[in-house]
Amino acid sequence: MSDEGEVFERPDTVVVNAPSGNHHTIEPFAFLTSVKESERNHNVLLISNQPFKIDLKAIWTHCGLVVCSDGGANRLHDYFTNDKEREDFLPNYVVGDFDSLRDNVKRFYQSRGVKIIPQYGQYSNDFQKSVRCIQIHFLLSEQGKPWPEVDEDDGLKDIWEKELHGSSNIDIRIYALSVIGGRFDQTIQSINQLYILHKEQSNLHFFFITNYDLIFLLYKGVNYVTYPNRAIFCKDTSSPPLCGLLPLGDKPVTLNSFGFRYDVKNWVTKMMGQVSSSNRVVGEKGFIVECTEDISMNIELNL
Amino acid sequence: MSDEGEVFERPDTVVVNAPSGNHHTIEPFAFLTSVKESERNHNVLLISNQPFKIDLKAIWTHCGLVVCSDGGANRLHDYFTNDKEREDFLPNYVVGDFDSLRDNVKRFYQSRGVKIIPQYGQYSNDFQKSVRCIQIHFLLSEQGKPWPEVDEDDGLKDIWEKELHGSSNIDIRIYALSVIGGRFDQTIQSINQLYILHKEQSNLHFFFITNYDLIFLLYKGVNYVTYPNRAIFCKDTSSPPLCGLLPLGDKPVTLNSFGFRYDVKNWVTKMMGQVSSSNRVVGEKGFIVECTEDISMNIELNL
Repeated sequence: MSDEGEVFERPDTVVVNAPSGNHHTIEPFAFLTSVKESERNHNVLLISNQPFKIDLKAIWTHCGLVVCSDGGANRLHDYFTNDKEREDFLPNYVVGDFDSLRDNVKRFYQSRGVKIIPQYGQYSNDFQKSVRCIQIHFLLSEQGKPWPEVDEDDGLKDIWEKELHGSSNIDIRIYALSVIGGRFDQTIQSINQLYILHKEQSNLHFFFITNYDLIFLLYKGVNYVTYPNRAIFCKDTSSPPLCGLLPLGDKPVTLNSFGFRYDVKNWVTKMMGQVSSSNRVVGEKGFIVECTEDISMNIELNL
Repeated sequence: MSDEGEVFERPDTVVVNAPSGNHHTIEPFAFLTSVKESERNHNVLLISNQPFKIDLKAIWTHCGLVVCSDGGANRLHDYFTNDKEREDFLPNYVVGDFDSLRDNVKRFYQSRGVKIIPQYGQYSNDFQKSVRCIQIHFLLSEQGKPWPEVDEDDGLKDIWEKELHGSSNIDIRIYALSVIGGRFDQTIQSINQLYILHKEQSNLHFFFITNYDLIFLLYKGVNYVTYPNRAIFCKDTSSPPLCGLLPLGDKPVTLNSFGFRYDVKNWVTKMMGQVSSSNRVVGEKGFIVECTEDISMNIELNL
């Protein structure tokens, strides 16, 4: 049994306090709760060119910055029925190679002062271009500098790598809509980027919002994942929200947890081995996961 | 460069002949093409309790056996508007712990002679129970034996493991609808099972049909993936079908390929490293992938 670790079954609700030692604090549901300016300023909504079902207005007020990735601007535009409403929900930037951005959408947002940033270089995808735009935005804002002229081929890459040295200490939560759940190679490439981007730029914290759940990374070490209460992300309180811990990196992960229906102790998880799925979040205001490597997790969203 | 392997760009159409040496032949689109009794008899359609968009009637005629996993029977029932049609599309078995099968659906299929097999044991899930049902069906049919009495707790498990010794040589393609694309932990657990089940029961070949693509396993060694033509699975022939090679097992995989837009030679793929996504199938009637470990792949479906 010791090879496989131990499993403990918990009741529907357990009180889990923050760990006393060093730990990462993760607030995955900030996009539903941040009210203070200083908090919401660090929540970014990133809209890609895929259908989404979420109530955009409900999360908009908790996000300080909105970036549309190429045709994501079409989705945002078409989400609303009239221009009056569209003007109340303007993104800050539209970025990409614009192979899908419609002309009327581009004109609409341009005429309302939204920054339209074509980037025709083909060695990055629209997602990577948008992430660079976000990094540059925060760094320049902090330094009190205006948005610069951006070369239309690889300007964002040049500014980020050459002028800003490709690093930032500003913690940013990027909430990306609809990068998961379409074609499976795109889903898995997004998950791959979830791991890689945080390793390269540790100030970035990605959260993928799907029609069913929220997907994010837990970091090597001790993680305290916290929220005001579970009803915030799972309105149906008849049973605790479903979740999973998904070892999609390149190594097995040993887990210790406190705050799940099935908590584990020294439990090794890897693909082609044991994987924790259909588990449940029973921690009332948070749970703890200690892991030997970064690991992705998902929590049911029911808004 | 040699560490990263080499990449070759191909035109839209390339003729790829079957390899001369030992190889696995994989016909992923048999569910759209099998006509001969001997072929369609080995195609199984497995319907789970998730929404699906595929044209069921178009694939039904190419599948010799249909199994509904618990509430999958509700989905099948509700797909049709009247009983006359439902009677033309009866499944062979309905299997599961029946926590979601509706009473009226159960009665309907039971009264039409469909085998309803409750399995209340909680150490397997409905998917695993359905797979055992399929294995038993083929073995008993081959031996000319009738379907036995099945204990309602773990009868299928007992028959499969004790009476049939848990192994079979009968090659079976299982086309599973809608096990991918819902909650992300379920998606990843299904992919985990894709690898594990074939390792444990190598006569089983799983194909997951999603609303966007077909997902299946390529096997360690040389694979020849073949089809009559690409328009069979991708009606929009303006550009070659999209695909990806996804290293979701527990080891890095070295790849050699022939028949993709971007073919690779000695190319190492792993999560947190290089992953081939948004590639395209340019082999006219097939392509070749040599891999050092089992690897999952997806191909766009556009029916």
